[in-house]
Amino acid sequence: MADLKTVEWVNGHVRMIDQTKLPYKFTYVNLQNYRQVAAAIKRMIVRGAPAIGAAAAMGLALAANANKGRSKARSLQELEVAAGVLRSSRPTAWNLFWAIDRVMQRAKAVDGDASDVASAVTDEARKIAEEDVASCHRIGEAGAALLADGDRVLTHCNTGTLAAVSYGTALAPIRTAISQGKKVRVVATETRPRLQGAKLTTYELSRDGIPVTLIVDGAAGYVMKTGMVQKVIVGADRITEKFVANKVGTYLIALAAKANNVPFYIAAPSSTFDLRNENPEVKIEERDAEEVTHIAGKRIPPRGVPVFNPAFDLTPVELVQGFITERGVVAPGCLKDAIV
Amino acid sequence: MADLKTVEWVNGHVRMIDQTKLPYKFTYVNLQNYRQVAAAIKRMIVRGAPAIGAAAAMGLALAANANKGRSKARSLQELEVAAGVLRSSRPTAWNLFWAIDRVMQRAKAVDGDASDVASAVTDEARKIAEEDVASCHRIGEAGAALLADGDRVLTHCNTGTLAAVSYGTALAPIRTAISQGKKVRVVATETRPRLQGAKLTTYELSRDGIPVTLIVDGAAGYVMKTGMVQKVIVGADRITEKFVANKVGTYLIALAAKANNVPFYIAAPSSTFDLRNENPEVKIEERDAEEVTHIAGKRIPPRGVPVFNPAFDLTPVELVQGFITERGVVAPGCLKDAIV
Repeated sequence: MADLKTVEWVNGHVRMIDQTKLPYKFTYVNLQNYRQVAAAIKRMIVRGAPAIGAAAAMGLALAANANKGRSKARSLQELEVAAGVLRSSRPTAWNLFWAIDRVMQRAKAVDGDASDVASAVTDEARKIAEEDVASCHRIGEAGAALLADGDRVLTHCNTGTLAAVSYGTALAPIRTAISQGKKVRVVATETRPRLQGAKLTTYELSRDGIPVTLIVDGAAGYVMKTGMVQKVIVGADRITEKFVANKVGTYLIALAAKANNVPFYIAAPSSTFDLRNENPEVKIEERDAEEVTHIAGKRIPPRGVPVFNPAFDLTPVELVQGFITERGVVAPGCLKDAIV
Repeated sequence: MADLKTVEWVNGHVRMIDQTKLPYKFTYVNLQNYRQVAAAIKRMIVRGAPAIGAAAAMGLALAANANKGRSKARSLQELEVAAGVLRSSRPTAWNLFWAIDRVMQRAKAVDGDASDVASAVTDEARKIAEEDVASCHRIGEAGAALLADGDRVLTHCNTGTLAAVSYGTALAPIRTAISQGKKVRVVATETRPRLQGAKLTTYELSRDGIPVTLIVDGAAGYVMKTGMVQKVIVGADRITEKFVANKVGTYLIALAAKANNVPFYIAAPSSTFDLRNENPEVKIEERDAEEVTHIAGKRIPPRGVPVFNPAFDLTPVELVQGFITERGVVAPGCLKDAIV
């Protein structure tokens, strides 16, 4: 799946792999307007920080193209509305805000009419997608150098092709190391509540012939303590100077890695880094109780039990051995110099 | 549910709450021979270290009663066979081996015929069950003293009435504190793969009117980091001088508790302590892949994905603030003096 596109601009619309159907059915959805894109992000038809960044940019392209017959002022106004709707689709992944800001900046700088705005916005969205693929490949190269022949790497959630435009973030070093001839195997946590590890990571790696063993989230400490894994690589939804916001459960994995001297890496493109100021407010999304209470359509706990369902958690950067980015591997203390 | 009996000797047979049916259906099963008891332990109709200890003892009582018309030698021989079958039902919980050893010692000391053996074994099994209830209540008292009014306590798996003969181990301090008028609330992890937290703990606490909030296992670190919980109390399947074997995921919770200065307690009766020697071999049970791959009867990952499914993990005793036992709260360094 290393070459598949999770989200792509095709003949004036946005085509996405429908990730809510995997691993049972591989199918694409075609989206015609930005509201459909925002809904797809919210419903997690597309998920993974880089993928939703690219999707949001393409959502803006749909909005700009829908208004290219209007005045430039009106077109920009409609783009602002679209940007607002897309921004509110999910609160945590920084790539979403980064991509929207970048596209809006390009749109505002256009010297021409609404049709020129549409061309510029479409071009910028496609560039974001192309750059993401290139970044993922560079992350793969930088990260592969950290992996030894025979390593078993623990990962959490899905950070492969399905989480980016293609190739992936935390799975990229594994892909690249294997393409270099190293024998690398993966231990994937199932990643409750949405089970992205069980549903997407095992699917993606199996399809590509990469050996993967599935564990429950709670077993991550045990596999490190018993020496079953040599490295941990996970992705990120937002990285600040102090914290990494990533799929809930990441913090526990980072603590176990530290306690067992297993190097813990974060793989992410620079579009995931939110280094605006020292302590930016990071909103941790809380999702529906039903994600926890219902599995495969069946209610698990008794009716009426309250649920707390944070989608992400915060890992202190001190627990991170290195950030694997398209600009190389960066130590936690050097983020600002390397990324800004 | 504080007064219900999870496992009980009733009119010459063993009655158990069928925990595989909860929370959907509350029903008892009646077991007539020790093989049914061993199967019930293996299938987790009864689970929880103290409960399976008592169940195994009652399994031996069934065996002894089935042979009371035979010679004493034959009766003891059959008891040894039963003990072997019961010992092999599950490998990790120490209470199982402790209870079987205790009953067998009593049986061997009988001065009389097979009928006397049967009486003695039945009496010993009932005593083990009665003592377990008393121990749980004393654990409740000792542990309640550690809880402050307003505390929110994180727990893992199920350690209540359903995990013991009655009242529970890690839930006992919460029950007792509440009966003393303290306002104490619970955060329960769902506890994959068998979901004992989601299915049993929420059921048991809700039935008793104790406020409980359900989280996925991966969120345990986040709730500590954000100050949502003030204490952690979990149970144990086996405690050695160096490690606590308990439901997989416990180790991660202990690490997060340490990192966030949240006191982490283990609640267990002395029958859970395996202090025979400094480093006893603790077998960590690996259970069927299907517990991970199938939820509510539905396959989650693609077919053929390998699974590693350890039922327990090992937490170093240094991460434990105190062991709440029927003999009081014991510091990790003082186990041998307090328990042996």
